[in-house]
Amino acid sequence: MSATEKCTYGDVRPTNLSFEEAIAKLEAALKNEGFGVLTRIDIQAKLKEKLGVQFPRYMILGACNPPIAHKALQQDVDLGLLLPCNAVVYERDGRIYAGVVDAARMLSITGYPQMEPLACEVNDRLRRALDAVAPSAAAAS
Amino acid sequence: MSATEKCTYGDVRPTNLSFEEAIAKLEAALKNEGFGVLTRIDIQAKLKEKLGVQFPRYMILGACNPPIAHKALQQDVDLGLLLPCNAVVYERDGRIYAGVVDAARMLSITGYPQMEPLACEVNDRLRRALDAVAPSAAAAS
Repeated sequence: MSATEKCTYGDVRPTNLSFEEAIAKLEAALKNEGFGVLTRIDIQAKLKEKLGVQFPRYMILGACNPPIAHKALQQDVDLGLLLPCNAVVYERDGRIYAGVVDAARMLSITGYPQMEPLACEVNDRLRRALDAVAPSAAAAS
Repeated sequence: MSATEKCTYGDVRPTNLSFEEAIAKLEAALKNEGFGVLTRIDIQAKLKEKLGVQFPRYMILGACNPPIAHKALQQDVDLGLLLPCNAVVYERDGRIYAGVVDAARMLSITGYPQMEPLACEVNDRLRRALDAVAPSAAAAS
């Protein structure tokens, strides 16, 4: 997709931070919203190691809110196939972007309407965490 | 969902293995199909630690095929929001289940038709890996 196209399955925003600052700030903001960062994937390092290719800096953070994950797994034991919720920090054209997945969109593929309130709560929290790192275009304008 | 309902966003099958055997076998089978297991989340341990609750044994493996991930990220830089592909091993009613996500279903939320061939290749590989751990009902009958 081009840089001007909007992500339809998440909220990704440009920041005024360095790569390291954006990761630290996003992790702290996620923690404030009750998410632990359970996994970190350094895509740049992994692609360099496995394929020998150069790729811009790119970190995937796997965020999990334990009480919500517990409720969701009790409703649907297979839901681990879609956990945790991802946040990303990446570099593109010299600028650092931060983003979070749209949990409602992702969980919609389960086809279980009872997941919706949980997904909405997750989304509210993820959006607030992202707001702390990069104000939305609407809020910034 | 009840144990008899079929997962609509992945392929989850009962095995005749122990929890540890199923994880080891699934990781080896994923490796044979070109996936590295980049993340491991021990849900039972995490829920015990964070909430003090008892939960059955449950491991989420985050699997990534570097060449396919590289192609997908070049097509859509935001795709890290949906990576890696998950496999799970869990205990339910005294039996061990193993499963893999339906990558085509998951990537369908991107709305990008050009992801489809990549998602189908991922699915073929994930299904073959799962076959090595637990034959499908069709193959077993």
